[in-house]
Amino acid sequence: MTQEPEQAVEEQDARDDDDAYALRPKNVTAILYAVDTDDREQLVALLEPLHPADIADMLEQINAFDRMRLIKLYGKEFDGDILSELDESIREEVIRTLHPEVLAEAVRELESDDVVDLLEDLDEAQQEAILEVLEDSDRVAVEQSLTYPEYSAGRLMQREVVMAPEHWNVGEAIDYLRSTEDLPEQFYHIVLVDPKLRPIGNVGLGRLMASRREVLLRSLISETFHVFPVTRPEGEVAYAFNQYHLISAPVVDENERLVGVITIDDAMAVLDEEHEEDILRLAGVGEESRLSDTVLETTKQRLPWLAVNLMTAILASIVIAQFEDVIAQVVALAVLMPIVASMGGNAGTQSLTVAVRALATKDLTGSNVWRIIRREGTVGLVNGAAFALVMGVLEYLWFGSAVLGMVIAAAMVINMLVAGLAGIMIPVVLDRLKIDPALASGTFVTTVTDVVGFFAFLGLARVVLL
Amino acid sequence: MTQEPEQAVEEQDARDDDDAYALRPKNVTAILYAVDTDDREQLVALLEPLHPADIADMLEQINAFDRMRLIKLYGKEFDGDILSELDESIREEVIRTLHPEVLAEAVRELESDDVVDLLEDLDEAQQEAILEVLEDSDRVAVEQSLTYPEYSAGRLMQREVVMAPEHWNVGEAIDYLRSTEDLPEQFYHIVLVDPKLRPIGNVGLGRLMASRREVLLRSLISETFHVFPVTRPEGEVAYAFNQYHLISAPVVDENERLVGVITIDDAMAVLDEEHEEDILRLAGVGEESRLSDTVLETTKQRLPWLAVNLMTAILASIVIAQFEDVIAQVVALAVLMPIVASMGGNAGTQSLTVAVRALATKDLTGSNVWRIIRREGTVGLVNGAAFALVMGVLEYLWFGSAVLGMVIAAAMVINMLVAGLAGIMIPVVLDRLKIDPALASGTFVTTVTDVVGFFAFLGLARVVLL
Repeated sequence: MTQEPEQAVEEQDARDDDDAYALRPKNVTAILYAVDTDDREQLVALLEPLHPADIADMLEQINAFDRMRLIKLYGKEFDGDILSELDESIREEVIRTLHPEVLAEAVRELESDDVVDLLEDLDEAQQEAILEVLEDSDRVAVEQSLTYPEYSAGRLMQREVVMAPEHWNVGEAIDYLRSTEDLPEQFYHIVLVDPKLRPIGNVGLGRLMASRREVLLRSLISETFHVFPVTRPEGEVAYAFNQYHLISAPVVDENERLVGVITIDDAMAVLDEEHEEDILRLAGVGEESRLSDTVLETTKQRLPWLAVNLMTAILASIVIAQFEDVIAQVVALAVLMPIVASMGGNAGTQSLTVAVRALATKDLTGSNVWRIIRREGTVGLVNGAAFALVMGVLEYLWFGSAVLGMVIAAAMVINMLVAGLAGIMIPVVLDRLKIDPALASGTFVTTVTDVVGFFAFLGLARVVLL
Repeated sequence: MTQEPEQAVEEQDARDDDDAYALRPKNVTAILYAVDTDDREQLVALLEPLHPADIADMLEQINAFDRMRLIKLYGKEFDGDILSELDESIREEVIRTLHPEVLAEAVRELESDDVVDLLEDLDEAQQEAILEVLEDSDRVAVEQSLTYPEYSAGRLMQREVVMAPEHWNVGEAIDYLRSTEDLPEQFYHIVLVDPKLRPIGNVGLGRLMASRREVLLRSLISETFHVFPVTRPEGEVAYAFNQYHLISAPVVDENERLVGVITIDDAMAVLDEEHEEDILRLAGVGEESRLSDTVLETTKQRLPWLAVNLMTAILASIVIAQFEDVIAQVVALAVLMPIVASMGGNAGTQSLTVAVRALATKDLTGSNVWRIIRREGTVGLVNGAAFALVMGVLEYLWFGSAVLGMVIAAAMVINMLVAGLAGIMIPVVLDRLKIDPALASGTFVTTVTDVVGFFAFLGLARVVLL
């Protein structure tokens, strides 16, 4: 090779200014070629400069057969961090493919929180296999973490904590750190604890470093300090990190004793996942949906939502069926009715998306919910009036019936007002009932706008035209 | 008062385990009562324990009149960080309300990246007013940052960097930090630079602290090290932080000289905003949409998307109008046709949401796009076949026409296949054309599924029934 691969990537990076991404289709092609030609040396050379997160992405992008061959060829170079970065759906398959010795080696390199994350989604036999290869102390720690509820602070935290008694000074802390062999890979604060091991404050390493040896740690405590109980849901933890710009935060057990620490990179990953789930739920796609899923998995995830949609569509059809008489006489009604329903559906989706987001970010609360309901209703009314005017005129130009123009205009105003109100009130009510509004709001809102849209338009038409 | 407010919040926190949030409707009520009764002392006592981010949230939740009165009453206690945390839409209003002296004091407390963030969205007169109150050195720094493109790494970074020459050892670094007065509030790495001020590596403070004074900094460099040019879009920066678990990363100018540093909390905020924008765009809501917007602002944001939707709905109506003859003879067609369109629209939305997300997270690339297109087509076909069967049978039970049952079944298969393919291919093509797929895909896809759905169903019906 004439050029270090890392350097090549850096250079491309500099040229290709709008893309900071180190894994490119061309790299993937080269990697697959190495696999095809059984060229282990070349494969290792290509993968070596890549970050484990990029290798994991690459494994997700290629198909299952190539993945298996690649892992067998890559052999003992396989890094534990790649496992941590893999999507759950593929992780299980990869763990089954890995040689037990390679797996053992890979897992032993990981921090406790990553091992816990790895184990969570495996079946019991695979869990046992991994627990067995851990050192005793690590195994106990991991098993302890697994006793905490899924998606809790206890699962998210790492158990490796750097702590100091509250009476220490800077010099004592530095000497302690210098003499400790097994410090965590990354840490940003020293947690001060009282004699009962309860955390009383964080000292940032920056302030620690900038202070003279005789300064008391207690005097360097950060202003912002959040402590999470082990049972706190990880979504709440991520929210607090984002809201209060936390970098790391201690986790305590039911006796308020320090048992671990959560760092911002883990919180960021949770925030990212929660967003992903919200978007997928809003679209009626199973939140576990992954690009690497098979046809069968994808079909199974999407089918239930389509079934719900079929039921609501049939409900709308039943409404239409009540007006077969008037449609038979004025076929223009059949032509125009989807417009009323569609505009309502769209306005409702706008309103509900804003509401679902605001609930997720805790911006929509008891303090402002009535004001926002009023606003959404008014916006629906104003937009409804605007499009009623447009649509009334268009109808007249198209079908030449002033009466039908007024009917569609009136139906439009009614449906868009209802859409605005339903779009905000349905998510709020679902949230109060502790049902995830992202999951269910869409179906309810479009059902309402379909039913109201068809009923208002066809009902008014019957009254006026027959 | 019998209890420190901070302590009260902590206790509530411990009780109310599923909510880490410190600002509750009941606090807001108490705050508004203090404003109503002009009780400055009480207001300060209530706001003092709150984090600036929570005060900003509270200001966003109350109405404009209460906001004005609160700010006037709160007076000089108003903290610069509250301004940073406020939504842009309200920030301008608050800056106008603040007494110039209070504003000057508030702004002087901020770090340079926060001042830049503050200035970006203000009109020129307000920008001037704020720049004037800054110290000379700060003003020059801020003005320099404003020369970088909006949403770039240059705007996001803070200019306060802790750096060290590459030949220093741990002792020299510690002595330097102890003797420097004006260190940044938070920092996690020391950036090593060569004589031309080009960054060559990061030394984490944890490793620094754990090492003896004579150890060379060069030997402590972190494995993961990313350098961003000032022009790199902030979305790419946030992606890299999340992908590579970065904590802080240096920013360089066109000569590769170190000019600033980006920390993970800023990257996390960008990631959060980008997600928010994606969700709002997918729903056809202006991405600038905020809960605190007025009726007029909201109406104006949503109107364009509704107008686009109206056009696509009319397009679908034009398709229907081509089949007035057959609808007039078989009114059941008008009853059933929305079902075909609705199922296609839903399947298309599922498919496109997965595609838009995968494009945003760079999981959908040239390496796997054909496989995913095949998958989405197959899933559409399978789900289409399943619902065709269900709907065919339901039609027969409802209207008793076997022929019409076969028509709706065939139309369903066609439309759901097209929906699956359009749902993946439209976002991919838009992405290649450098058009944000989140923004435009939804409209295109539902237009396709409406047109194809109505055309397939009514067209087949005409062939078979007339």
